[in-house]
Amino acid sequence: MDALAELVESLPAGVVVTDGDRIEKYRWDRSQDPHAGTPLAVVRAEDAGQVQTAVRWAARHDLPVVPRGAGTGLSGGASAVDGGLVLTLERMTAIEVDPVCQVAVVEPGALNKDVKAAAAKHGLWYPPDPSSYEICSIGGNVATNAGGLCCVKYGVTTDYVLGLDVVLADGTLVTLGGTRIKDVAGLSLLKLFVGSEGTLGVVTRAIMRLVPAQVVGATLVAALPTMTAAAEAVVAIRRSLRPSMLELMDQPSIRAVEAHRPMGLDTSAGALLVAQSDAPGSACTAEVEAMSAACRAAGAGEVFVTTDADEGELFVQARRMVIPAVEVLGELMLEDVGVPVPRLPELVDAVARIAERHDLLIPVVAHAGDGNTHPLIVVPRGDDAAKLRALAAFEEIMHAAIALDGTITGEHGVGRTKKSALPAQLGEDVMALTRRVKDALDPQGILNPGAVL
Amino acid sequence: MDALAELVESLPAGVVVTDGDRIEKYRWDRSQDPHAGTPLAVVRAEDAGQVQTAVRWAARHDLPVVPRGAGTGLSGGASAVDGGLVLTLERMTAIEVDPVCQVAVVEPGALNKDVKAAAAKHGLWYPPDPSSYEICSIGGNVATNAGGLCCVKYGVTTDYVLGLDVVLADGTLVTLGGTRIKDVAGLSLLKLFVGSEGTLGVVTRAIMRLVPAQVVGATLVAALPTMTAAAEAVVAIRRSLRPSMLELMDQPSIRAVEAHRPMGLDTSAGALLVAQSDAPGSACTAEVEAMSAACRAAGAGEVFVTTDADEGELFVQARRMVIPAVEVLGELMLEDVGVPVPRLPELVDAVARIAERHDLLIPVVAHAGDGNTHPLIVVPRGDDAAKLRALAAFEEIMHAAIALDGTITGEHGVGRTKKSALPAQLGEDVMALTRRVKDALDPQGILNPGAVL
Repeated sequence: MDALAELVESLPAGVVVTDGDRIEKYRWDRSQDPHAGTPLAVVRAEDAGQVQTAVRWAARHDLPVVPRGAGTGLSGGASAVDGGLVLTLERMTAIEVDPVCQVAVVEPGALNKDVKAAAAKHGLWYPPDPSSYEICSIGGNVATNAGGLCCVKYGVTTDYVLGLDVVLADGTLVTLGGTRIKDVAGLSLLKLFVGSEGTLGVVTRAIMRLVPAQVVGATLVAALPTMTAAAEAVVAIRRSLRPSMLELMDQPSIRAVEAHRPMGLDTSAGALLVAQSDAPGSACTAEVEAMSAACRAAGAGEVFVTTDADEGELFVQARRMVIPAVEVLGELMLEDVGVPVPRLPELVDAVARIAERHDLLIPVVAHAGDGNTHPLIVVPRGDDAAKLRALAAFEEIMHAAIALDGTITGEHGVGRTKKSALPAQLGEDVMALTRRVKDALDPQGILNPGAVL
Repeated sequence: MDALAELVESLPAGVVVTDGDRIEKYRWDRSQDPHAGTPLAVVRAEDAGQVQTAVRWAARHDLPVVPRGAGTGLSGGASAVDGGLVLTLERMTAIEVDPVCQVAVVEPGALNKDVKAAAAKHGLWYPPDPSSYEICSIGGNVATNAGGLCCVKYGVTTDYVLGLDVVLADGTLVTLGGTRIKDVAGLSLLKLFVGSEGTLGVVTRAIMRLVPAQVVGATLVAALPTMTAAAEAVVAIRRSLRPSMLELMDQPSIRAVEAHRPMGLDTSAGALLVAQSDAPGSACTAEVEAMSAACRAAGAGEVFVTTDADEGELFVQARRMVIPAVEVLGELMLEDVGVPVPRLPELVDAVARIAERHDLLIPVVAHAGDGNTHPLIVVPRGDDAAKLRALAAFEEIMHAAIALDGTITGEHGVGRTKKSALPAQLGEDVMALTRRVKDALDPQGILNPGAVL
């Protein structure tokens, strides 16, 4: 019996997909990595046992396994590998909320928004909110240690992971952590798997911490003359306040959104800062007033404040709409570089210079409160020369971030599209250390080969 | 030249201590581990270069290195090993606060309280606050992923570690993370070193995140009839509120404190709950009122609330005084077990049964909001029989926690005194995985051998 037949036989009908047409959509994530391979088969696992079966099979035959959530990754972390398996967790979507323990026990294919909704039924909240929260899965969030808009106050995915079930490279299922909040027994293996992008194991269950729901009390929108001025406002705000959102759009982003769906944004502004406060009661007013003052001190003309939740949400939607709005202008290469917050203006300047040098449009949106920016490199469709210039710009932006004490990826992950720059950020010794950990956990190198390392 | 002479020669005068009397105090941490060995020498490092020199020397001669901070550890994580080095970081105490980046760049020997003080000068705050914060070092805090009283709202040490310099087992110095807030480039090696208790590397510098200072607005003290009732109040409070402190003392603890320093605590109460709110403005009043209501619903007689900061601090001091007060009654064996919050009453019951069975006094204090308890096993001085019973109780309490889905250590670490129970908590497969990571990073096994594993 050949290897593939053995796999098909060892799993229930319908779990292993080998049909070429059906396989096609599992080759790429949203980064549309041109180097994505063609897998031998896709395993659409229904439970942890099937994940173990698939991984054991791959180990036996020394074949690559690419784990996959909702396929919304932006760095090619889920690009298929020629002749290997794609192991999709999309069918494992169970969510169980324990309101007394304040945790959600979640299968990896469950969508972020569904975890939020399940928690909300109990007056609880799962904070991490990638911009793609309506379509991305918790498994993918764990794999990339995903961030989002609320991170500035509430932290990133790893801060909410209390427990993980992980299938290791040899098919062993381990349970790490649990429903207890504090636990320092043994090495922090739990945290090691968060952000490991499928290179160390396959998460089959996650226990996520929930917190009491917070109410956004006010939204502030400030028009600043320049991105530098806006970044100054951000630094000033962070110094004494803890806003629940602190986002930035540059002029090209504002204009793209306004062109895509007119809502009266100030298209003459150099930058738009969108901030929210969920401080309770009267403290909210005080926080927003202090933010307004910081914006004015940084040179803001108009500062608009609303306590109407729906109106506030419109501006947040404007911020979330930047990517689809810019996508209208061409294909996007989505950057994710970050720097220490005070160095934001330098990063923005560097991106502008790179854009000019390569004759490219590169709007910038930012989770500014965390120093995490998304330069959006626009490639006019069908313009192959621009595509090449964009690839060069993509690399240069990562190196500009590194030169500013920054990171090549704040929340999307390294995947395959950013790995060329990883050694420049981490250095030889940390790369060697990374390799040692990888080799210890996956000696055959079958888990997501080609990603990260 | 013999090995020791080679070490002495390779480091500046005064760094290597070999004198028997002076070595003595470096043999133990606060757990007074009776199995602590006698080191060949103590290296009192002044900088990372000297740490590298010492570790390289140890690697060359295949000798154990026990890293050590302030020696306030409670699990024997810094017990000396016969014939090895103790590598103390107590002389590396520099603290540099960058108020714009909102980080403290700290050498490992700096005390927690000094980091707090340095941050406070800039209106900033370093939250983690182990009860020993006045005498414990940041290096030790990182090594154990230390917790404290504010964790219930503000998290533990790992949540504040943005960067680490670590000397690896072969003497290589690696820099992980930095001053950027969000960074997912590469594996989460940074988090792996936090809580590794000196078994994977020696931290020589830490970059700790700071946040704007918060003001405690009100303190609540509630007398509950039983620990079970108090635990119910805790669960109810956590459901909708985020107090900045949520601590519990049982009756023996209350009585010990009152006997030690009378302050009018209700010694007839079954449990005393001490909570604080740092919600801003009027929200503080609302939060405290809701906590009061939850306590009353759980059967509280008296509920005392004060907005006077000094008065509030008195009650927090009463809580912090439990350990010294109970220490008057005998030698202490300090437990650190945790459970999912709703299982607190079961854990408290289990501890009471163990105390009764072994005819021991075991007062319990708890970071109740996190489900983390400190049963304080009292051994009357000079009573060898009681000492044996206490050792048995110590083990049984850990296994009781495991049986309740809990942990043998919430914040003190496994060290040497708790490692016998670690396999029962983690299971064979996770122990094997731990061993693989340890072997990959420290193939000779020279870093803190005998701790954790």
